Amino acid sequence: MQDFVFHNSTKLLFGKDKEQLVGQESVVYGKKLLLHYGGGSIKSSGLYDRVVQSLLEEGIELFELGGVKPNPRVSLVREGIELCKDKNIDLILAVGGGSVIDSAKAIAAGAKYDGDVWDFYDGNAEVMDSLPIGVVLTIPAAGSESSEGSVITNEDGWFKRATGHTSLRPRFAILNPVLTYTLPTYQTACGITDMIAHILERYFTNEKNVELTDRLCEAALKTIINNAHTALENPTNYDARAEIMWSGTIAHNDLLGTGRIGDWGSHDIEHELSGIYDIAHGAGLAIVFPAWMRYVYKHDVNRFVQFANRVWDVEIDLNNLEKTALAGIKKTEQFFNSIGMPVTLKEANIGQEHFEQMAKKGTERGPLGNFVKLYKDDVVQILNLAK
Amino acid sequence: MQDFVFHNSTKLLFGKDKEQLVGQESVVYGKKLLLHYGGGSIKSSGLYDRVVQSLLEEGIELFELGGVKPNPRVSLVREGIELCKDKNIDLILAVGGGSVIDSAKAIAAGAKYDGDVWDFYDGNAEVMDSLPIGVVLTIPAAGSESSEGSVITNEDGWFKRATGHTSLRPRFAILNPVLTYTLPTYQTACGITDMIAHILERYFTNEKNVELTDRLCEAALKTIINNAHTALENPTNYDARAEIMWSGTIAHNDLLGTGRIGDWGSHDIEHELSGIYDIAHGAGLAIVFPAWMRYVYKHDVNRFVQFANRVWDVEIDLNNLEKTALAGIKKTEQFFNSIGMPVTLKEANIGQEHFEQMAKKGTERGPLGNFVKLYKDDVVQILNLAK
Repeated sequence: MQDFVFHNSTKLLFGKDKEQLVGQESVVYGKKLLLHYGGGSIKSSGLYDRVVQSLLEEGIELFELGGVKPNPRVSLVREGIELCKDKNIDLILAVGGGSVIDSAKAIAAGAKYDGDVWDFYDGNAEVMDSLPIGVVLTIPAAGSESSEGSVITNEDGWFKRATGHTSLRPRFAILNPVLTYTLPTYQTACGITDMIAHILERYFTNEKNVELTDRLCEAALKTIINNAHTALENPTNYDARAEIMWSGTIAHNDLLGTGRIGDWGSHDIEHELSGIYDIAHGAGLAIVFPAWMRYVYKHDVNRFVQFANRVWDVEIDLNNLEKTALAGIKKTEQFFNSIGMPVTLKEANIGQEHFEQMAKKGTERGPLGNFVKLYKDDVVQILNLAK
Repeated sequence: MQDFVFHNSTKLLFGKDKEQLVGQESVVYGKKLLLHYGGGSIKSSGLYDRVVQSLLEEGIELFELGGVKPNPRVSLVREGIELCKDKNIDLILAVGGGSVIDSAKAIAAGAKYDGDVWDFYDGNAEVMDSLPIGVVLTIPAAGSESSEGSVITNEDGWFKRATGHTSLRPRFAILNPVLTYTLPTYQTACGITDMIAHILERYFTNEKNVELTDRLCEAALKTIINNAHTALENPTNYDARAEIMWSGTIAHNDLLGTGRIGDWGSHDIEHELSGIYDIAHGAGLAIVFPAWMRYVYKHDVNRFVQFANRVWDVEIDLNNLEKTALAGIKKTEQFFNSIGMPVTLKEANIGQEHFEQMAKKGTERGPLGNFVKLYKDDVVQILNLAK
């Protein structure tokens, strides 16, 4: 087990109607608030009105910036930063999913910085301080509601890059499973895939003696898998929605990675895919992860056997461990497929014309991943396995 | 799943030599520090010197109060409160296990209160504010290093009572598994029992649809069970010590109880035992918990079957679920016994002369437990099962 610091101070308010508390949670940080959101769904659902009412009841002055797109763009972030500086904003409230939260984080960091915000994502500067961030979560997927990370896309070259800092961890996040009832099936499935991928990135480590976190990962994986079909087939099933929402936060709040070095190669490859093709992040992961698994499993067959056995209940064939490992990978792929995700690039109408370009761009700052280091040619081979 | 708020902001620094960071973590809260500890073991081990050196390097002014006993006493707490008020202490640093931390919490709350500190434990006042608390943990057991609870014993009548408040949650805790190498075998085993009991108290709930937290509980239980004998037989095995130390914190940091209503009847009964007999808390729990299980298992046989199957790998006999449930209870008892814990009152030289008195005292503020409500006669019957 590696040494570590674990410090996650996000206050999580979980349950029905909890968005009514957003005013009292926000006003702690000041009276001038930037309300950040995506498209019109929070307006048509009535959530926007409830949030605004709760904020106004606390005498909060509201400024607004909507229009966040999936794979959120740095151009809108820059607009938000201007607004924050101009209006002396005290708190940014993100109402939405991972894209909105990540965009809010970028604005929060940029508002405390004199240079251009892309510096943080391009590795040219480190975040030192940020405006406080609050969240009303509508899409359980990214885990950004209690993480310190943010991923933004730069349209100028379609770079999708990540940054992180402790000050970017939201101060509070409101998680009401009822808000997820209206999520389209496809988006629910993408979210499920994303949270599974967050756990798998931590699970596949070279670190030995990480039994507690191995088992916590397996616990979260089994829960998500067991509740996925219920949530998809019966979108207003509170219990399944609640299990998935809480699992999505736990998947990415850093606990499951304590003492371990995660991989994150599949995420990086997916960022290249969705940077170019604007495919949903979850769908991209469903394609990349099984291919990555097939490419690397021989590096530690035992770990893949443990995964197959404990997560997928595959019986261990002691005379053929590789067979057991491959059965676990197959089960993973079949599961993604069963919830409506593409598992090949072909299913997502993505050809091989940009394989070289993506592999080059993805590895230009060094090899990807930790479980197995991936250089440009490895990335091309994984993309070929995903065809 | 119940609605909940989860907010655990303790900064946890885990790993070898991490006590060297105690000065820099402490100075954030001020320059006047009360160093609170138990007996001489931290002096003979050299830990005391290392901690003092790190504090002095940051220019911190030190005040000291040692002498905390197991089942910490309110008389010493009162002494600490006087000291804090007199010297305008900024931070209390607890170096030790649960008793020292709980004593530090009582002092921290009392230092901000004009009345007598016992009011908080007797239900006559609620904690509203506390001095900040830091921890260097030497005994993984109580989980007090990141919990908001404190248990204190009043020698005047031998009452052992609990209180809690968010301000009592330590600001930071340093967890170095190497510091636990010198723990006596019996104390290690008591700690293991205590952390298992913390999980079981949360596990046995009437709440339905709590799959994620069920599985997280099972993950932590399996990890503790799997590493217990290694830690006991080879006390300097870092990996086993680390798994147990991290599990002990996770067992009691509130995550495993999110969305559930825990039981805590066994803890309350044990508090009566150790209030009178000064038996180690862990040993008392090893006696009470199996008896409690036998007394209540028919209330929800399926939950006990799940426990037997998932934690103890007992095959489910669908034609005799009670048999499966009882096999899980037997395994629990055998495990406690295998690590050197008493599992009957007789083994701890405790007779039945105070059964009525303990049951009366324990239930005078209302029935105990939540899974099954326990009145005075129920407590007597459980104590009889534990004879």
